[in-house]
Amino acid sequence: MENLTHGGDWAGYEQEYGKAPLDFSSNASPLGLPEGVRQAVIRSLQNAERYPDPLCRQLRRAIANAEGIDPLWCLCGSGSADLIYRAVLARRPRRALVTAPTFAEYEAALALVSCRTERYTLRKEDGFLLREDFLKLIMPGVDMVLLCEPNNPTGRTTSRKLLMEILTRCRETGTLLVVDECFGSFLDDPGLHTMCGQLEKFPNLLILKAFTKLYAMAGLRLGYCLCSDTTLLNAMREAGQPWAVSGPAQAAGVAALAEAEYAQAVRALTARERPWLAGELARLGCEVIPGEANYLLFAQEKPLLKPLRRRGILLRGCGNYQGLNDTWYRAAVRNREDNRRFLAALEDILKEENP
Amino acid sequence: MENLTHGGDWAGYEQEYGKAPLDFSSNASPLGLPEGVRQAVIRSLQNAERYPDPLCRQLRRAIANAEGIDPLWCLCGSGSADLIYRAVLARRPRRALVTAPTFAEYEAALALVSCRTERYTLRKEDGFLLREDFLKLIMPGVDMVLLCEPNNPTGRTTSRKLLMEILTRCRETGTLLVVDECFGSFLDDPGLHTMCGQLEKFPNLLILKAFTKLYAMAGLRLGYCLCSDTTLLNAMREAGQPWAVSGPAQAAGVAALAEAEYAQAVRALTARERPWLAGELARLGCEVIPGEANYLLFAQEKPLLKPLRRRGILLRGCGNYQGLNDTWYRAAVRNREDNRRFLAALEDILKEENP
Repeated sequence: MENLTHGGDWAGYEQEYGKAPLDFSSNASPLGLPEGVRQAVIRSLQNAERYPDPLCRQLRRAIANAEGIDPLWCLCGSGSADLIYRAVLARRPRRALVTAPTFAEYEAALALVSCRTERYTLRKEDGFLLREDFLKLIMPGVDMVLLCEPNNPTGRTTSRKLLMEILTRCRETGTLLVVDECFGSFLDDPGLHTMCGQLEKFPNLLILKAFTKLYAMAGLRLGYCLCSDTTLLNAMREAGQPWAVSGPAQAAGVAALAEAEYAQAVRALTARERPWLAGELARLGCEVIPGEANYLLFAQEKPLLKPLRRRGILLRGCGNYQGLNDTWYRAAVRNREDNRRFLAALEDILKEENP
Repeated sequence: MENLTHGGDWAGYEQEYGKAPLDFSSNASPLGLPEGVRQAVIRSLQNAERYPDPLCRQLRRAIANAEGIDPLWCLCGSGSADLIYRAVLARRPRRALVTAPTFAEYEAALALVSCRTERYTLRKEDGFLLREDFLKLIMPGVDMVLLCEPNNPTGRTTSRKLLMEILTRCRETGTLLVVDECFGSFLDDPGLHTMCGQLEKFPNLLILKAFTKLYAMAGLRLGYCLCSDTTLLNAMREAGQPWAVSGPAQAAGVAALAEAEYAQAVRALTARERPWLAGELARLGCEVIPGEANYLLFAQEKPLLKPLRRRGILLRGCGNYQGLNDTWYRAAVRNREDNRRFLAALEDILKEENP
């Protein structure tokens, strides 16, 4: 059958090798599904015959409570990717602005409505950081700006000052600013970076969030978005099927929000392992971008994907990211044991004459 | 929070009454989730941190095997409703033809691409059956025709002869015929009615199927479609997020296809209970449409929704179906005990002076 261009193709690997790979190509918490979430999903199966609540009422109340916002400002989706498509279908931008490199689904969704999309190139020499001149590109007629904070695959964040200038500028130009904070929970201090505090003042701000990565539940498909423009949220709800969020996902979300200790442990692990892994990658001669999330972007001239795969390890090649090429890779930050296995395989490959 | 217009609003009921209702407003198998499916979902949680396979490779192989088709002719979705939206977004019809009454999501999806949608009225005096003059409406410029077989909410099917004429006519006019067979498995002999045998000869045929109802897993969200036009299927795959089908849903689908005995038991129960329930409803003075699926459409002058709700029972009022009004109701066919409870409550209400 077909092949996959995204990371996380464990299924393709298993089909070929008949066993599970060690997956550094997608970025979920290495601590596994919290037991409380697992139990909640199993309990939810007692009502598997029911259509899930299209309005996700219990889950939205729980999210609103956790975020300190009105439940009416929250819309849930089948992963944040679902919400990206809904935002684009609801808003139907004719012109949009994205960065490069960034998460490919923004452009994929924009293409669906034949949007003219401008790419702002993040340069290696700037550490892939957004520059002030980004502001100049936000002008009347640009209907949507999409930013990933921290950015995927670079792991970099934009300064709060510049983010606020972008948001203010977007309000002036009638532009919807979509800030994808799906990896925001992996920052050392997520509260310092999130734009959630601006929702009330800026109805042109749409924030995307995920349960997927922090709670190791990418398979269950659950994300949400926050916006004080409830007309936009209603249009997004109508821009796709009503029963997008499965019953197990809704139950998992409610349970996950009670897992404060687990979330803290993931953050602590990430804070500990990220600099260590970055240091080791640099020691092996890779050029490492100082990311702040649970993954690291690095460059290496030697081809790594196939030799790592032969050694049972999946890595995300970044050749299909706009603005990067085949020498760039994204590695998840996992636990020390996994990171050691990955580094050992990498060292082995880099020592070889013809890997 | 908001209210719901679809059937199956158990969540709204529970919010109000603090207990579960007896749900006659949505149409899943009353036998509950098969144990093999439940176990498969629980096993799948071991890999909850993985993104689900976007290509659903294992599941599609299992479906292809069960349907006797090429896996490339199959696309899975997060319920068949997901696939309705994808088909519309991929094909972008400017003109479409639907029946009235029928499943409301066809028109909701068509509205998303500003399609001019013509409604063909199914008349009570024809038993809500499609007539030959439907053929005359299929002309060049009509990009899409959507038929629900058996139809929701009437439970009626179109004769094989007329279906073949419609399909042939659609091929002549360059029209995509979408046949929604989501309730097809509840027919007494599903093999006699399905259009699956026509896929190879007619690349303009798209068949929708669901796991949802037959295997009592509406909460898990899983449907699929079959079409020999792989270009259309690829466009549908790109018309939304890549990870639409959750890991648990994929595991459930594979396991469900092994549940032949369960499926047979559901069909036997439906075949036994449907005529009995229809007879009892008629005895109570309701006008019952002779449906062939696991639900029955009936008319009753007395308002039923609120008094049934007060008695703990949800029924689907059909006032918001195009072509029906508030005197029409759709009742699921459940097991004898549930059906008796429903009928007793109904009898009670119909005896009252002011219900």
